[in-house]
Amino acid sequence: MNPMIDLLNSHRSIRKFTAEPIDQATVDALVQAGQAAATSSFIQACTVIQVSQGERRDALAEMAGNQPYVAAAPVFLVFCADMKRHQLACGMHDAEMLSGYTEQFLTASLDCALFAQNVMVAAESLGLGGVYIGGLRNQIAAVADLLELPELVYPVFGLCLGQPDQNPEVKPRLPLDVVLKHDRYDDSADAERIAAYDASVREYYRTRTGGNKEMSWSEQISGMLVKEARPHMLPFLNTKGFIKR
Amino acid sequence: MNPMIDLLNSHRSIRKFTAEPIDQATVDALVQAGQAAATSSFIQACTVIQVSQGERRDALAEMAGNQPYVAAAPVFLVFCADMKRHQLACGMHDAEMLSGYTEQFLTASLDCALFAQNVMVAAESLGLGGVYIGGLRNQIAAVADLLELPELVYPVFGLCLGQPDQNPEVKPRLPLDVVLKHDRYDDSADAERIAAYDASVREYYRTRTGGNKEMSWSEQISGMLVKEARPHMLPFLNTKGFIKR
Repeated sequence: MNPMIDLLNSHRSIRKFTAEPIDQATVDALVQAGQAAATSSFIQACTVIQVSQGERRDALAEMAGNQPYVAAAPVFLVFCADMKRHQLACGMHDAEMLSGYTEQFLTASLDCALFAQNVMVAAESLGLGGVYIGGLRNQIAAVADLLELPELVYPVFGLCLGQPDQNPEVKPRLPLDVVLKHDRYDDSADAERIAAYDASVREYYRTRTGGNKEMSWSEQISGMLVKEARPHMLPFLNTKGFIKR
Repeated sequence: MNPMIDLLNSHRSIRKFTAEPIDQATVDALVQAGQAAATSSFIQACTVIQVSQGERRDALAEMAGNQPYVAAAPVFLVFCADMKRHQLACGMHDAEMLSGYTEQFLTASLDCALFAQNVMVAAESLGLGGVYIGGLRNQIAAVADLLELPELVYPVFGLCLGQPDQNPEVKPRLPLDVVLKHDRYDDSADAERIAAYDASVREYYRTRTGGNKEMSWSEQISGMLVKEARPHMLPFLNTKGFIKR
């Protein structure tokens, strides 16, 4: 429809980068583009920690489940949901902040995602590529310690950025009529639609792996969701002062 | 730096729209651009409900705290975090999904935000404007009932879209050195930086309201956070099967 929408539609995760560095002025500009995203009630609850290459970065790569691109990416950013800043703001006016609400956890986390997506899009508009690293939540307490995160701050996800050194295909998404409903939630036809979609995902993997992997979307999801999903998250978030009520 | 980044940096919330409709092909294209965003482990956990104008939309406007633009916007989308689809996928393979994890709540909510931000940016690239409606969470149970949301689906936020009929200034953001940290979390200089920023926010409001409102960022935040933050959220989410462990 236009170059911007074409850019959005051409997104794919990039996990292999050339050695070409990204200068700090560019990183600053990307983060500023992130700040320009909407923020719930102007809370601006996202803090980005840019982790330079070296020991700390290597440790993060291991904590994320041995993802070597976390160590190798020219730039690695950790997006943190941050309500400590608000405690500071309250302190400036002798006000006592009521914290621990699930709503606050949610808005701060959403702020990070809106912010990060702007960073991703801005990076892609410069010809860079990237991949989000949810794997930081595998050992989230260790990550928080490593980055010296205080109470009311937690790492939502990471983002690797760099010049792409691979050119993966765009991964097919669910059919529009599964994802876009009108006026009310009605999924009565979705099983059938997902079955049709499954075939295209299987084909995507077959082509991409030279026949080594053939897996449909629903197979992949069902294999994943029979397992526990990071059961340490709620206790960890509680220790950081989140989701206490 | 380039037209895309300029577009991101020029974002402001639009709450007043011309009557000009947005055709369905455009809405579909915007939602497809949303789908192109990254999704955690390919879960694709966002469902969009497009609510047409009329009684249902009017009810949502009231539930959101009487925000008339929710009723008046040419297009109104509700972004729902949806793990019911995954239950369906598991059922297709006789697998029993383990649900209720905080991690699942988080990834599904983040998926919605990444998706929605693409929709916002795509809309803005077409000259449209919009505003997120977190106010849907004021009466979230009523909103969920109105949209007939089943268990494992909840409304994260709404989005009004249309042709702008106002031209607000871009709101100043926190200084970059408050938001971007290097290698570790260090906010020791932030109180001072926030005080300087407060002055620019006060000036923004003074100019924008013709002197009727003068409020700094920290004042605004401290006024807001001494109050309860939607304390119904956790019990509501629990009834929908989220954050149970």
